[in-house]
Amino acid sequence: MPDFPTGSVWLVGAGPGHIGLISVMGLFALKQADVIVYDALVNRDFLKFSRPDAEAIYAGKRGGKPSAKQQNIIDTIIKYAQQGKRVLRLKGGDPFVFGRGGEEVEALAQANIKFLAVPGITAGIGGLAFAHIPATTRETNQSITFLTGHDSKGIIPSAIDWDALAKGAQTIVMYMSLKNIRAICERLIAAGRNADESVAFVRNATLVDQQVWQTTLGKAADFVTEHAISPPAIVIMGANVDLRQRVLEHALPIFKQTSSNDQTQ
Amino acid sequence: MPDFPTGSVWLVGAGPGHIGLISVMGLFALKQADVIVYDALVNRDFLKFSRPDAEAIYAGKRGGKPSAKQQNIIDTIIKYAQQGKRVLRLKGGDPFVFGRGGEEVEALAQANIKFLAVPGITAGIGGLAFAHIPATTRETNQSITFLTGHDSKGIIPSAIDWDALAKGAQTIVMYMSLKNIRAICERLIAAGRNADESVAFVRNATLVDQQVWQTTLGKAADFVTEHAISPPAIVIMGANVDLRQRVLEHALPIFKQTSSNDQTQ
Repeated sequence: MPDFPTGSVWLVGAGPGHIGLISVMGLFALKQADVIVYDALVNRDFLKFSRPDAEAIYAGKRGGKPSAKQQNIIDTIIKYAQQGKRVLRLKGGDPFVFGRGGEEVEALAQANIKFLAVPGITAGIGGLAFAHIPATTRETNQSITFLTGHDSKGIIPSAIDWDALAKGAQTIVMYMSLKNIRAICERLIAAGRNADESVAFVRNATLVDQQVWQTTLGKAADFVTEHAISPPAIVIMGANVDLRQRVLEHALPIFKQTSSNDQTQ
Repeated sequence: MPDFPTGSVWLVGAGPGHIGLISVMGLFALKQADVIVYDALVNRDFLKFSRPDAEAIYAGKRGGKPSAKQQNIIDTIIKYAQQGKRVLRLKGGDPFVFGRGGEEVEALAQANIKFLAVPGITAGIGGLAFAHIPATTRETNQSITFLTGHDSKGIIPSAIDWDALAKGAQTIVMYMSLKNIRAICERLIAAGRNADESVAFVRNATLVDQQVWQTTLGKAADFVTEHAISPPAIVIMGANVDLRQRVLEHALPIFKQTSSNDQTQ
């Protein structure tokens, strides 16, 4: 394993939620850190692997001033590193996939603090696997696109060319897209995407209360309302979603209790 | 952890290469399996975590008849599962990202064998992190597209709308694309992609002999020839590639020896 020197920061991807999905290297970091700064979406059960004397700091963002809050997180990890602590910045999924890890790493570099970014399993891949949806198959898709459904202002990202995306992307996995789901689906259909295309929602991916729903692109926005699907959830659209039904009954239970949180309509 | 019953198959993503990047759940499976069927790109060091009496079967594909070989792999895992073994199918990266895990799971379902797919860190994300390239940043990209540069016949996938991809995709991460790199780059530039866009190559991602190169889209094909870049390598094109230079000198060494395998031209 790499060294975790005092006065440095490791950004570690905790994975999509299940504590078994952190990497061995991430667990190694958890056991060594003096300070753990963890996000709202990180499973608190991870903290039981930390040193008894480690300081755990919750860095969940709350509504209002997300930018200021992000600056607070950056200030916090820099402060502890400058105090000579081994700082573990524990982030959900992968630190560099829609996680603002890039900004944190850049701030650390500017503050002359050494860092290591340890990748994690992003929800858009790990959540699909535990929902028994292959991200790609030779039969259905040779590409997969991950996008965030809101930008820093909470609106649909204008830097994405949605018309070209509708035509050029095969399977699309959307993070943080429930709020803007109606506008996104309308835009994709208007650009020629098939309204009958399969769409799945995976809420609380890989956790014991994971829920999976399946519908179509044309019905997706109403479906979210009817079933009161709330964040955190990923949305998958593409032909590979349908493969799920062919394998589902042969999947081993991921959790000890039988899960019946599966709704296809 | 989930149960690993006799007569079942776990498909486990080993991650991009470094043995510290397998998940804790994947390591748990390695320690329990009776039979381990592993791919060519899987680091053999993983096998030291297996039981002393476990049978390790190499399932690397060789040139010639890839489809027949894939059928052999499927036959093998089914055979051992039917003998009542706990079969671990250890695949590089994530089992469902360009890994034919979907086909294997479907074959298992048809053979009435229980399975669990344990996700892994895909090279296109984990390799980027260890190359200090953030997969996304708010400043550069709200989407990221992963694609394979060859289809089952070894040619550029015709199911991808390359013109729309060039316009609709922001950052693009390409797997298995070196062989077709010239044609792919020409096609993307012809469709309007900027020839000055940054392109990085990460070879042997996350392993001790990882190499990273940076060039531009217009020069990429010649660059591969000049530097004799050979598989396995991932190719990343997008504005986020440039962030690497801003943080690189502050990155902790991932391996004990200092790596100088970094070339930017």
